[in-house]
Amino acid sequence: SSGPAAASGALERAMDELLRRAVPPTPVYELREKTPAPAEGQCADFVSFYSGLAEVAERAELLGRLARGFGVDHGQVAEQSASVLQLRQQQREAAVLLQAEDRLRYALVPRYRGLFHHISKLDGGVRFLVRLRADLLEAQALRLVEGPDVREMNGVLKGMLSEWFSSGFLNLERVTWHSSCEVLQKVSESEAVHPVKSWMDMKRRVGPYRRCYFFSHCSTPGEPLIVLHVALTSDITSNIQAIVKECPPSETEEKNKIAAAIFYSISLAQQGLQGVELGTFLVKRVIKELQKDFPHLGTFSSLSPIPGFTKWLLGLLNSQMKELGRNELFTDSECKELSELTGGPANETLKAFLGSHEWVKSEKLVRALQAPLMRLCAWYLYGEKHRGYALNPVANFHLQNGAVMWRINWMADTSLKGLSGSCGLMVNYRYFLDETGPNSTAYLGSKSIKASEQVLNLVAQFQKNSKL
Amino acid sequence: SSGPAAASGALERAMDELLRRAVPPTPVYELREKTPAPAEGQCADFVSFYSGLAEVAERAELLGRLARGFGVDHGQVAEQSASVLQLRQQQREAAVLLQAEDRLRYALVPRYRGLFHHISKLDGGVRFLVRLRADLLEAQALRLVEGPDVREMNGVLKGMLSEWFSSGFLNLERVTWHSSCEVLQKVSESEAVHPVKSWMDMKRRVGPYRRCYFFSHCSTPGEPLIVLHVALTSDITSNIQAIVKECPPSETEEKNKIAAAIFYSISLAQQGLQGVELGTFLVKRVIKELQKDFPHLGTFSSLSPIPGFTKWLLGLLNSQMKELGRNELFTDSECKELSELTGGPANETLKAFLGSHEWVKSEKLVRALQAPLMRLCAWYLYGEKHRGYALNPVANFHLQNGAVMWRINWMADTSLKGLSGSCGLMVNYRYFLDETGPNSTAYLGSKSIKASEQVLNLVAQFQKNSKL
Amino acid sequence: SSGPAAASGALERAMDELLRRAVPPTPVYELREKTPAPAEGQCADFVSFYSGLAEVAERAELLGRLARGFGVDHGQVAEQSASVLQLRQQQREAAVLLQAEDRLRYALVPRYRGLFHHISKLDGGVRFLVRLRADLLEAQALRLVEGPDVREMNGVLKGMLSEWFSSGFLNLERVTWHSSCEVLQKVSESEAVHPVKSWMDMKRRVGPYRRCYFFSHCSTPGEPLIVLHVALTSDITSNIQAIVKECPPSETEEKNKIAAAIFYSISLAQQGLQGVELGTFLVKRVIKELQKDFPHLGTFSSLSPIPGFTKWLLGLLNSQMKELGRNELFTDSECKELSELTGGPANETLKAFLGSHEWVKSEKLVRALQAPLMRLCAWYLYGEKHRGYALNPVANFHLQNGAVMWRINWMADTSLKGLSGSCGLMVNYRYFLDETGPNSTAYLGSKSIKASEQVLNLVAQFQKNSKL
Amino acid sequence: SSGPAAASGALERAMDELLRRAVPPTPVYELREKTPAPAEGQCADFVSFYSGLAEVAERAELLGRLARGFGVDHGQVAEQSASVLQLRQQQREAAVLLQAEDRLRYALVPRYRGLFHHISKLDGGVRFLVRLRADLLEAQALRLVEGPDVREMNGVLKGMLSEWFSSGFLNLERVTWHSSCEVLQKVSESEAVHPVKSWMDMKRRVGPYRRCYFFSHCSTPGEPLIVLHVALTSDITSNIQAIVKECPPSETEEKNKIAAAIFYSISLAQQGLQGVELGTFLVKRVIKELQKDFPHLGTFSSLSPIPGFTKWLLGLLNSQMKELGRNELFTDSECKELSELTGGPANETLKAFLGSHEWVKSEKLVRALQAPLMRLCAWYLYGEKHRGYALNPVANFHLQNGAVMWRINWMADTSLKGLSGSCGLMVNYRYFLDETGPNSTAYLGSKSIKASEQVLNLVAQFQKNSKL
Repeated sequence: SSGPAAASGALERAMDELLRRAVPPTPVYELREKTPAPAEGQCADFVSFYSGLAEVAERAELLGRLARGFGVDHGQVAEQSASVLQLRQQQREAAVLLQAEDRLRYALVPRYRGLFHHISKLDGGVRFLVRLRADLLEAQALRLVEGPDVREMNGVLKGMLSEWFSSGFLNLERVTWHSSCEVLQKVSESEAVHPVKSWMDMKRRVGPYRRCYFFSHCSTPGEPLIVLHVALTSDITSNIQAIVKECPPSETEEKNKIAAAIFYSISLAQQGLQGVELGTFLVKRVIKELQKDFPHLGTFSSLSPIPGFTKWLLGLLNSQMKELGRNELFTDSECKELSELTGGPANETLKAFLGSHEWVKSEKLVRALQAPLMRLCAWYLYGEKHRGYALNPVANFHLQNGAVMWRINWMADTSLKGLSGSCGLMVNYRYFLDETGPNSTAYLGSKSIKASEQVLNLVAQFQKNSKL
Repeated sequence: SSGPAAASGALERAMDELLRRAVPPTPVYELREKTPAPAEGQCADFVSFYSGLAEVAERAELLGRLARGFGVDHGQVAEQSASVLQLRQQQREAAVLLQAEDRLRYALVPRYRGLFHHISKLDGGVRFLVRLRADLLEAQALRLVEGPDVREMNGVLKGMLSEWFSSGFLNLERVTWHSSCEVLQKVSESEAVHPVKSWMDMKRRVGPYRRCYFFSHCSTPGEPLIVLHVALTSDITSNIQAIVKECPPSETEEKNKIAAAIFYSISLAQQGLQGVELGTFLVKRVIKELQKDFPHLGTFSSLSPIPGFTKWLLGLLNSQMKELGRNELFTDSECKELSELTGGPANETLKAFLGSHEWVKSEKLVRALQAPLMRLCAWYLYGEKHRGYALNPVANFHLQNGAVMWRINWMADTSLKGLSGSCGLMVNYRYFLDETGPNSTAYLGSKSIKASEQVLNLVAQFQKNSKL
Repeated sequence: SSGPAAASGALERAMDELLRRAVPPTPVYELREKTPAPAEGQCADFVSFYSGLAEVAERAELLGRLARGFGVDHGQVAEQSASVLQLRQQQREAAVLLQAEDRLRYALVPRYRGLFHHISKLDGGVRFLVRLRADLLEAQALRLVEGPDVREMNGVLKGMLSEWFSSGFLNLERVTWHSSCEVLQKVSESEAVHPVKSWMDMKRRVGPYRRCYFFSHCSTPGEPLIVLHVALTSDITSNIQAIVKECPPSETEEKNKIAAAIFYSISLAQQGLQGVELGTFLVKRVIKELQKDFPHLGTFSSLSPIPGFTKWLLGLLNSQMKELGRNELFTDSECKELSELTGGPANETLKAFLGSHEWVKSEKLVRALQAPLMRLCAWYLYGEKHRGYALNPVANFHLQNGAVMWRINWMADTSLKGLSGSCGLMVNYRYFLDETGPNSTAYLGSKSIKASEQVLNLVAQFQKNSKL
Repeated sequence: SSGPAAASGALERAMDELLRRAVPPTPVYELREKTPAPAEGQCADFVSFYSGLAEVAERAELLGRLARGFGVDHGQVAEQSASVLQLRQQQREAAVLLQAEDRLRYALVPRYRGLFHHISKLDGGVRFLVRLRADLLEAQALRLVEGPDVREMNGVLKGMLSEWFSSGFLNLERVTWHSSCEVLQKVSESEAVHPVKSWMDMKRRVGPYRRCYFFSHCSTPGEPLIVLHVALTSDITSNIQAIVKECPPSETEEKNKIAAAIFYSISLAQQGLQGVELGTFLVKRVIKELQKDFPHLGTFSSLSPIPGFTKWLLGLLNSQMKELGRNELFTDSECKELSELTGGPANETLKAFLGSHEWVKSEKLVRALQAPLMRLCAWYLYGEKHRGYALNPVANFHLQNGAVMWRINWMADTSLKGLSGSCGLMVNYRYFLDETGPNSTAYLGSKSIKASEQVLNLVAQFQKNSKL
């Protein structure tokens, strides 16, 4: 009757005990500014207990208990709500109503917010909360913890982090080969889009014709929160290997060879800051910085991956096969050509090929697939939506920033990762600086996507030749 | 029919026009995270309009209009309150109730908070808001603007500033003669307690046997928010001139001569941060810093002014004279001695003397006044209250921090300022590091003041010899 | 029989004892690279003994003994010289001759050079040697120590300092109000030309439309060796009060108002570095720096004092009176006008007036004196020579740098110092950047002074109207 | 008739032309301080011409021409020598003699010194001269250039560099993972003793229980001149792999585990500074630094390679075989045992084995070789001399510094490099801080080596058992 369950029971009791001790009680409204801060040890206890939990499941358990047991006092909220309604009916003077509203506002603050607030004042406390939220997000993704209380706590944390990591407190730092190894190691490890292979690879990404910037919080300089890589080129690059593999033309930059800035990678280095508006600010700040250094620089564009495209396409092929017994994404002649080239039924071939990226080795297949994959990709980016906004997260990010969906590029990322994720396709989102404001408003407000003629043509071809 | 009034009408119309344009509308709840930030220019407009108002009265007018016209939508609050109450009665599932509470919380956010939020993201925006709040406090003090809406806006601003100026984001900086002139000029100008007379005076205050620290925000290093001056001495100093006038014993500090740290001045350098908990943190941090540098340092105490004592005493004398026709603060024999020494009626003499500080020139008067003024001062500090807490703001500050009211010092500040403000008296609040936590809790909770035997004896003498 | 003389005898014996102990013996040629450095204490002894001598006369005595007692071994020099001559006659192979020359070179190194060399390696050693040379120069000026050995030691020290303070090791630092108080105090104290009156005066000299630069040695950043003050103006300033007294036009510089850079003060901050080529390099470096910051800046000029002019003039008046019984510097009509204006004999009046600078109060006198003083000053600057070069040291400095003697300015420095030193006259030495090289070569080589038409005209007037 | 020779002739003419133009003439003695510096371009010409020579042979050619053609004017030297001798015979006053000596000193300065002097004042000039000397040393080693003039020029350059890189101008910098990648790459590339394999290897060498320091010149901070690696251990390490391969005990240093500092690598990073006394100073400075950080640290020792030992041993074996037909380094019984173990004649086996380091794979051979190789190594280090000093350069370095030859370690470096160079042997030179001064003097003066009992015993065994 003993064993893991008992051990687990002991852990749970320890958790409850800890929370009882560590979460400061909410002072009554009248004393809210006259209550001394809890002893430092009290909050530090929580930090060290939590940090001692090695398993994400244990951490999830503790966070779940915190969310469920130390949230808002609903009785208080109801009482104060009633009081506000009553005063309003009585048409009492403004001062009285305002105070009642303030009491209501106070009642709506969950008790765990006090814990987070006091932790934030400890040495390294804010950093701890960022990691805690990263754990919480991971635990939610793994469904280790669920429910509305947990979602609310996540929202409260995000709100607090958004205040602390507000753009006024972010420093833009440039990474060069003169930066510390510590920083370069962090930048290298956080690179999520085009993984860094070696120190010489990293040296190139911070060398001539390249820029690497990150935001740090002013209280922790040198700690990357989010990183942006830029290539300085003569025109809008259509191929990522040209940026991350090839050597730049020379050791010393010649300013007159630089006409375009290509954002080719943006990576969040602290997962706990998901949803905190950092990327948009970083892109804007870097554009300003580049304009200062290169006053004649006029072209700004991303060269972006299209994560999810292959998966979406394979999903569609599967479901069409299951439902219709055939694929209506490719035209008959396209299917025929593919059959001829591969000697098998187009659908099966396609599925096999898209999974294995063997097709890139055949020039003929590459040529045969270009037209259909380009128009399918255009549709995936332009036409597929989630709550009205672009389904693809990278597209959604740049469109929110006010960029234009500018060019879809064939054979743009021929690395294994690029072929698996998006059939080697990449896309440029272009920033016309005068129009990002209106574009952003239009996209966020009326959900309309601004796209170039190339993209719109491909979408039209899709609508003519493919059926969903 | 034209003239100032018309001009004023035009200004008011311009204000309304500005506010309409600059204060961003509150997005509906569903779109609260999908709303693009207002154009930078929109908030910058407010900043430049406001900064262009030269008169404090004009600024007060604008702030009043902002507070009154762009606060909480009371109808929304009532509606959401009703909704919460209804859901609670229906015993709906947690998720529904939590969301209703979140909507209510959202409705309770005043609209001007959005303006402040966006301003905070501008370059120099937070600094602007600190100055704006300083203006608001000044305008309230001058009664240029009043009312519950304004008080609420002040509270909202204070809350926002408290998040941004949280201790996790404050840097402790030490000022020395190697600091920049910019910093020393700011420190010198913000010295409110013992004004700095010259650069050589300032050089001494950052020289050997002296420490000067300030907090800056991590986003604006080198900008003092609050400044603390410390003297390193052999024992608890009872006289301020020994610190700010006399030359220190030698050019190089001898560590073994240092046994006590005397906090002899703490000044807020940014008035807009009143009420934001900075002083308490600064004292704590400096104590830690000093302990690190001087591991054997065991004695920490303030040497504090007693602003308001003379004024309080003169007020009492006046009212007793008016009400009773005589003064019951001094004993008969004290009055007699004073009359003999001055050749006039004790009361009149006293009032005249306390106003003119001529008395310090007479050794006999100084001796005669010592006993009564010491016990009156002890009572003023220990017995006079405001809402249960010490009336004297300096006492209240140190008692909140957990210090002990330790020693009242006669002839401790013989400068004009010291004689006018507090009859030359000063007081040491002593920090026994092991006890500050409990002391603070006891004071804030049960309002009980911890005092030394000297102080309690003086209070007892007051109670025996003086009548209020 | 005791007393000062005996004490002095004791001091002298202590000096001899110290030198015997502290000055390292010169190793024999063969072991010159195999000899361990003397114990640190040995050289440190000299430093602390020397630093303990409070009187400049005592220091002079010690330096004299060092110079006379520890110089070159003349016997060795003679021996090696003879050896070189003999080998040359024998027409021995190159290697043998070269080695003999190297031995001779080695013999020519004075023994005290080893002491200085080892001191230079101590912490703060180079700084000590700079101060030691300052003492030596002062002692020579006061004739406390004399003779060829001392002159030689001074030359050796200057040579060593010139290697260490070579331009490759000098950092240009700009002083602003953000520089440390330490630096600003040093800059302020070393200002020899136009004394700084207060901190606000100093703030103005590092504020808008002003630049202040200094050279520091790379091993002691923040320590000014030589300081240069520049005013950024619209044209070549003719009056120093316009620079050091008047407030600049506005708080923020407008680049388009800046067309000229006026070097209005250059001061050596370390007297021990006299004769080490610092000033010329500083002017050149600052010009480069300014050209970088203000690419369109085209006019560079000094506004320089004329130290010694009044003294030279009074000396001439005196000697002409003594020798000729009259003054031939002023024309008869000039003398007559002066007599009429002052009601006394011109010569006496002149001497009295030039001594007392009362004359500036009379507009008529100012007008009457302008023509003769201008031409006399032109001659003093252009015609008076020392070993063929300009007698006036400031003129000599700028002419060596390749500047042109460009404009003599009347009523240019009406401060007491300016009137006493140079009858209120100042001069602009203008730097035409394309011509400074040839000008410098011409001046240093053929001793010819490049001057503007204004100056040459004044010189011609002098030659016509005055007689020496 | 054309081709390489003609091309070479053209290059040589270009060299002569360049030198004529670029090397400034020596001013006559009287004008030595009145001669303007040559135009910047003149010296810069030399720098760019030289830098344009890609081949070391071409550079050697140019340097040879400079040394031979622009040295001392021997006629001048003879003339001034004669003058000095004559004045001395005439018993002229001191001033006259001193001036004659000064003229002689001036005549002894080679003309190319002026070129180097002016180059040193250019931006990056000193760095250029360091590289130039590195080329010169390489060219001498390759015998591309020879002769007394070249040796003299090398000496002059070394003398100049010694003044500029004097210890007063060197900054000690510590390398950590927070140092710039630039610095770590340089440190890594200059590691000559135990090559760095990867960035993680490098990270360990600057991590816990390790220290890495370098000297930089104060004019070029961040540029390593010479690098020293230290391991902080509990006792004197006898095996290098324990330092460079194994992971340190934990991530955070525990001060009480640190009792010894082991200098395990010292590498010159700038070959042009050979012979400039840097290593000795670096060791001294680092010892001081470590004593400051770890006041109880009492043991300082190197763990040093023995380059040349295997080569010396193989040479001896060869020559004994050739001369005597047998080897007298090993005893008969040792030879017998080796024969038995390897099944062949001891000598041949030995030569083969020492060349191939196969022997370490056999435990028996390792045991058999220990005694003879240890005593042979002791003799190599202690008994083999060059001009009376230790032949082995590493031994000579540490003995000059005053260290004691303390312990020879068997199987101390089992890397390929260690086995090839010194049969896996390493040696500790121990620094007893109180005795380094006397030890150094004794070694440099009387050439006596201080060694431990272990070493002396091994030497005695050698003298008993081996014959040279």
